[in-house]
Amino acid sequence: MAVLAAQMASNAEAIERELERLLPPVGGSQARLHEAMRYATLGGGKRLRPFLVVASGALFDVPAARARRVGAAIELVHGYSLIHDDLPAMDDALTRRGRPSCHRQFDEATAILAGDALQALAFELLADGPTHPDPAVRCELLLGLAVAAGAAGMCGGQMIDLEAEHRSLNMDQVLELQRLKTGALIGFACEAGAILGAAPAEARAALRGYAADLGLAFQIQDDLLDVIGDAALTGKDLGRDQAAGKATVVSLLGTDGARARLAELRESAHTHLRGIGGEVHLLREVFDFVISRLN
Amino acid sequence: MAVLAAQMASNAEAIERELERLLPPVGGSQARLHEAMRYATLGGGKRLRPFLVVASGALFDVPAARARRVGAAIELVHGYSLIHDDLPAMDDALTRRGRPSCHRQFDEATAILAGDALQALAFELLADGPTHPDPAVRCELLLGLAVAAGAAGMCGGQMIDLEAEHRSLNMDQVLELQRLKTGALIGFACEAGAILGAAPAEARAALRGYAADLGLAFQIQDDLLDVIGDAALTGKDLGRDQAAGKATVVSLLGTDGARARLAELRESAHTHLRGIGGEVHLLREVFDFVISRLN
Repeated sequence: MAVLAAQMASNAEAIERELERLLPPVGGSQARLHEAMRYATLGGGKRLRPFLVVASGALFDVPAARARRVGAAIELVHGYSLIHDDLPAMDDALTRRGRPSCHRQFDEATAILAGDALQALAFELLADGPTHPDPAVRCELLLGLAVAAGAAGMCGGQMIDLEAEHRSLNMDQVLELQRLKTGALIGFACEAGAILGAAPAEARAALRGYAADLGLAFQIQDDLLDVIGDAALTGKDLGRDQAAGKATVVSLLGTDGARARLAELRESAHTHLRGIGGEVHLLREVFDFVISRLN
Repeated sequence: MAVLAAQMASNAEAIERELERLLPPVGGSQARLHEAMRYATLGGGKRLRPFLVVASGALFDVPAARARRVGAAIELVHGYSLIHDDLPAMDDALTRRGRPSCHRQFDEATAILAGDALQALAFELLADGPTHPDPAVRCELLLGLAVAAGAAGMCGGQMIDLEAEHRSLNMDQVLELQRLKTGALIGFACEAGAILGAAPAEARAALRGYAADLGLAFQIQDDLLDVIGDAALTGKDLGRDQAAGKATVVSLLGTDGARARLAELRESAHTHLRGIGGEVHLLREVFDFVISRLN
């Protein structure tokens, strides 16, 4: 895990530099928009999704620099979703990564626009030549990211989540919510490495299985941290799901039940990885990192 | 013009059917999101941008059905921008196309999400095989749409527009605002036909010139309608720019000056079209439609 932590930290630095280079510089008539886009995406975050692209790509000999460009595009979509989720009309969150949320640092209109422009920038990056010399590969990446981000993915999950404040979800519905809201983008991050590396179909299916387990485990750990976490470590408001009476895996199974579920998911993820072969230890360690993280 | 009106109406019907088919059906756990996406994009609008793709594509023998799919993607981006622009934190508009704006019909959170999901859907459509058999063409379309929609296009223009409430813009700044906010997407609509038809570079440059004139003329006519238009015809709140003290071409030049500018732009657009050759009469007529429209 110490080796993994060093690798993740080094990757996070590289992603930071990549984003710094790809985001528009502050200047011009729309300087305030650029500033908000940079504020919301630079200077923090574990950069888990970009690391998943690098780690899954490494299984199929994808150069880390190429994987990181795709990882940066995913991080832009992730960043935009955090800005919009934090808005007063959504989760009304005051802090994010230990700083004022984007709409508090700027204003609501700027925050909405910054999210919109970050989503467009993510697709711009993927469509452009440096992503991969083969346009068919770029189109496959674009299609995957668009589906993961849209109504059948992240946006759909957030819609279910908003409605969960007004009705109580059962376990199947909670799992569906998490599969869309968090799972889709994490799943695409794992699959992106396979797309870049032209991986065989069986390996891709196994990666999808691993990613599904990882995405759900990530969310369960998030829900556990919402209940038992430390706001100083997570850098965001905690106890909000409980306060809102929202059903989560933790509220439905209890903390012990949720931890048991994490152990099952870990077993299942290992089984999927055995189906890929190659240097899968990195993805195994990422799983352990995700279920033991404190922020 | 009677022939053009019939062609535009027939194209608008075809676009309506295309959008109807491409938008997710109302159903599933995220039914409310799908409903809001459909509410905001179906049942109205002149569908000018899709028509521009068809008309410019026709110059290079692009089948209308292929042009309309790209036109539908542009219309999704246009539709998402209207949802977000109408939000209370932005222009706070009560009506759109003669109906309650999306956040009033649903709620703010749903409206924000519907806009986000529509943007993702636009890129999903373009990335997918049916758009064009050559993935290099799809990537060129994707790149063009992403740039036109993002910080260097529509979002950037909306940012300048928001800030214009707090500072008075001079003519150069107003033109920059319009070039980004309205011009970029209209420009891409004209260029998309050329991309689909693998048009020669000179023809593309001439189309870009035409599109720049058309985009500005479109906005000047919009500003004229905001001052002298009929709310029953436009289906949206009028007099808002004046009330907000926003500088526009009309406020800077007066209505007569603005009309004179439209005549100059018309001349310039005709000159650009002569550089293309072929059946450009349709694009000439679109220009006249844009500067004489009442809604």
